[in-house]
Amino acid sequence: MTKTNAGRFFEDYTVGQVIRHAVPRTVSGGERALYHALYPARHALYASDEFARACGLPASPLDDLAAFHVVFGKSVPDISLNAVANLGYAEARWHLPVYAGDTLRSESEVIGLKQNSSGKTGVVYVRTTGYNQHGAAVMDFVRWVMVRKRDVDAPAPEAVVPETAAAVEPADLVVPAGLDFTNYDFTLAGEPHRWGDYAVGEVIDHVDGVTIEEAEHMMATRLWQNTAKVHFDATVRPDGKRLIYGGHVISMARALTFNGLANAQMIVAINAGAHANPCFAGDTVRAWSEVIDKADTEAPGVGALRMRLVATKGGDVGALKGDDGKYLPDVLLDLDYWVLMPR
Amino acid sequence: MTKTNAGRFFEDYTVGQVIRHAVPRTVSGGERALYHALYPARHALYASDEFARACGLPASPLDDLAAFHVVFGKSVPDISLNAVANLGYAEARWHLPVYAGDTLRSESEVIGLKQNSSGKTGVVYVRTTGYNQHGAAVMDFVRWVMVRKRDVDAPAPEAVVPETAAAVEPADLVVPAGLDFTNYDFTLAGEPHRWGDYAVGEVIDHVDGVTIEEAEHMMATRLWQNTAKVHFDATVRPDGKRLIYGGHVISMARALTFNGLANAQMIVAINAGAHANPCFAGDTVRAWSEVIDKADTEAPGVGALRMRLVATKGGDVGALKGDDGKYLPDVLLDLDYWVLMPR
Amino acid sequence: MTKTNAGRFFEDYTVGQVIRHAVPRTVSGGERALYHALYPARHALYASDEFARACGLPASPLDDLAAFHVVFGKSVPDISLNAVANLGYAEARWHLPVYAGDTLRSESEVIGLKQNSSGKTGVVYVRTTGYNQHGAAVMDFVRWVMVRKRDVDAPAPEAVVPETAAAVEPADLVVPAGLDFTNYDFTLAGEPHRWGDYAVGEVIDHVDGVTIEEAEHMMATRLWQNTAKVHFDATVRPDGKRLIYGGHVISMARALTFNGLANAQMIVAINAGAHANPCFAGDTVRAWSEVIDKADTEAPGVGALRMRLVATKGGDVGALKGDDGKYLPDVLLDLDYWVLMPR
Repeated sequence: MTKTNAGRFFEDYTVGQVIRHAVPRTVSGGERALYHALYPARHALYASDEFARACGLPASPLDDLAAFHVVFGKSVPDISLNAVANLGYAEARWHLPVYAGDTLRSESEVIGLKQNSSGKTGVVYVRTTGYNQHGAAVMDFVRWVMVRKRDVDAPAPEAVVPETAAAVEPADLVVPAGLDFTNYDFTLAGEPHRWGDYAVGEVIDHVDGVTIEEAEHMMATRLWQNTAKVHFDATVRPDGKRLIYGGHVISMARALTFNGLANAQMIVAINAGAHANPCFAGDTVRAWSEVIDKADTEAPGVGALRMRLVATKGGDVGALKGDDGKYLPDVLLDLDYWVLMPR
Repeated sequence: MTKTNAGRFFEDYTVGQVIRHAVPRTVSGGERALYHALYPARHALYASDEFARACGLPASPLDDLAAFHVVFGKSVPDISLNAVANLGYAEARWHLPVYAGDTLRSESEVIGLKQNSSGKTGVVYVRTTGYNQHGAAVMDFVRWVMVRKRDVDAPAPEAVVPETAAAVEPADLVVPAGLDFTNYDFTLAGEPHRWGDYAVGEVIDHVDGVTIEEAEHMMATRLWQNTAKVHFDATVRPDGKRLIYGGHVISMARALTFNGLANAQMIVAINAGAHANPCFAGDTVRAWSEVIDKADTEAPGVGALRMRLVATKGGDVGALKGDDGKYLPDVLLDLDYWVLMPR
Repeated sequence: MTKTNAGRFFEDYTVGQVIRHAVPRTVSGGERALYHALYPARHALYASDEFARACGLPASPLDDLAAFHVVFGKSVPDISLNAVANLGYAEARWHLPVYAGDTLRSESEVIGLKQNSSGKTGVVYVRTTGYNQHGAAVMDFVRWVMVRKRDVDAPAPEAVVPETAAAVEPADLVVPAGLDFTNYDFTLAGEPHRWGDYAVGEVIDHVDGVTIEEAEHMMATRLWQNTAKVHFDATVRPDGKRLIYGGHVISMARALTFNGLANAQMIVAINAGAHANPCFAGDTVRAWSEVIDKADTEAPGVGALRMRLVATKGGDVGALKGDDGKYLPDVLLDLDYWVLMPR
């Protein structure tokens, strides 16, 4: 009897199945400090308890993307260990901030299955939800991955493709209880630009770049207990490269947006996301953003921006796809998200 | 008068001498987070306060090996700064879990001395004990190292070679007060295998591999305040390589055992250990285990497994020594330990 | 309207101007653990709450240099983003220890301006002060940087060059309230040498060396939220090298002084500092010290040493400048500081 986990294959999923993921995790100031060491993260709400309190929160939360990585990481051994590709994200929403001392666990429901025409792989759609120690959902998201079949001759399941929203509706965004930006300190936050200063269609070059190191992306990926071996084992790929966890690129790019989006404090939804090209150590990651939409919220002084965040390893700001409709080779990430900002 | 510490030489030790080691250390959630960033550590008892409480502990302890590294690291300037080789470990036992907020210090008693026939070096045997801020022992272990003589002509001391147990007796294992695995959540822990599912002689391939980086092993080794210069200074060895602290390999290999031994939660003893070959940055560390023995404990639901843990940089699972009785060149570590698991 | 911050140019500063810097920061045990992972820091007062309490403090503070880096880092986007060179430091004093849970912010007052004869750059003198959440100053320092002009034809401001002390007077050193070294435990601290054992003119070779890694200096520099792109982006310099933040060299060298200055616990002033030559990954940093002056304090058992700390990447101990009066090419740092030690 083998004791090691070979991961699930396409045949192992059924629609409606709920998978409780392993290894609950208590976070502390240690995770926060590491987040600040691994990314040039500077959004004030996530750096200072005092700033967070002045905005109506009890303390500075763990970075929203760190919460995402913890919840996501737990799902990897059950969902994407045998994934050929991480195809997409939708309907990610943050429901509650995560604070030092909270313990997170996560579970996934299989909401769709579709065998590919090759018969060798299939697409698995899951909704993954992270819970804190009180059993309250802190975030959930839909993702779909292409998974290998164990047995190519296994019969195809009935195809079920869930409908997901192209974007989370502004009315569905969850603003944390108590959040109030009416006394927001723009000087301490680092930039004067408020919600009203951003126009739909506006493109922002975030200017800075960070050259990626093996030690850093592995430390980040381990911190989230993501076990996919391509990130850690240089002998897996024929080219001897370690593929960088897509979430590392997301966090790096988001941190770079500080320069131009210093007041885009809280990520409350991810509408869609594509890892356009792989990222490797030695690449210098840059970022640009485009304002896609704007919405108001009922919280005092709080507006929402829907943003496209593009991470690249070069190329022109604003350039995304070629004439063939495919992502340009220097594009690493195309992320569509909602963020809260003082109005 | 020179102020810098040149370290002790063989003549500086006498049997019965007690050396109080420097630099007490308070640990926090920061050390825990770094441990999770540096190693793919996923054992639930060390990741989640909630899981630990469900097992009868007041909170999630610092990883047992992190406690070991802190206690060991303090002994390096006094015991092994001039060591030619770290020859062995025996009778390591954990007596109390270490929690965030605890302050550790350590001291060593010289329990044996034996000059080598060359007259240039000798073997020093010490029992090192770590204490917390209440003066309670948290762990102790015996190790022996080969140390240079300052003066080759100094007379040899009377040879005293301590008798150490080939393995800690099951009756001598210390199960933490309150530990109770009767309501253990195997799903949250990550695997269904319980103590009864493991058979003596069973070999487990832990499958995953991690390619080692300079920045990571140096950060780990510094975190434990281990000062041996071969780990940090690329100019020490003629080949320009930095030798990796053997404890880094132990922690990496133990973390890799999660895949197959997810329920082997608490290390309570190390019976023996050999750093079979040196490890350098760029090596990809893998691990396999063999069940050596099994024992029951009086704690509710708690069994003990005696395991051999072998870290390699390649080679076949189960292959340990050549026809000449020497470790194969790809074997990095051969560790014999006791671990607690739900029965 | 561009949203990104291009940084201030020489014309943007006026004498008397006060700039409140962005991104307040709450520190925790996470920052402390990272400091111990990134540097071979072993001074007992900063490692152990128990040791700190035995010296009259409420807990172990954040390393003094970590506090400096946090305060300094905040000033970078406003003061030195367009700096050609960091010319000097003076009159740095620590006023209050920083503890886990404290929130730091900083502000700078422009105290001098002098256009260079080229007309292309000017020197900006600022006094930067860090405050905690109670509005109390935790440290302040003067630094001067050479900053580019935006418009070469802009008129030169009236030259104002502040007078700064060659060294902080012993009477101006701030000893933390309650500090008492009368029951100091030299064994736990790691060395027997007390204040009376050090003689003016004495030179100490700290022996050890650390080879610098890209991942480590970037993690450290990010942790202090220092955004200067030369530290992170390998495409900025024509040689493809990332310039290492001078503060990383300061912390590395200070940590290395443990070997010979283990009892030089608290840095209370920096009198002057020069980054003599740039440092890059792969360099092996070493350190030597010279006792410049000694002073008594009114605190029980507490003396002060004025030290020169020299970081090098090779060369002879004690060698600092060539016949031309310039720093030797292997010298990285020349730092003049006051430190408290048991008398």
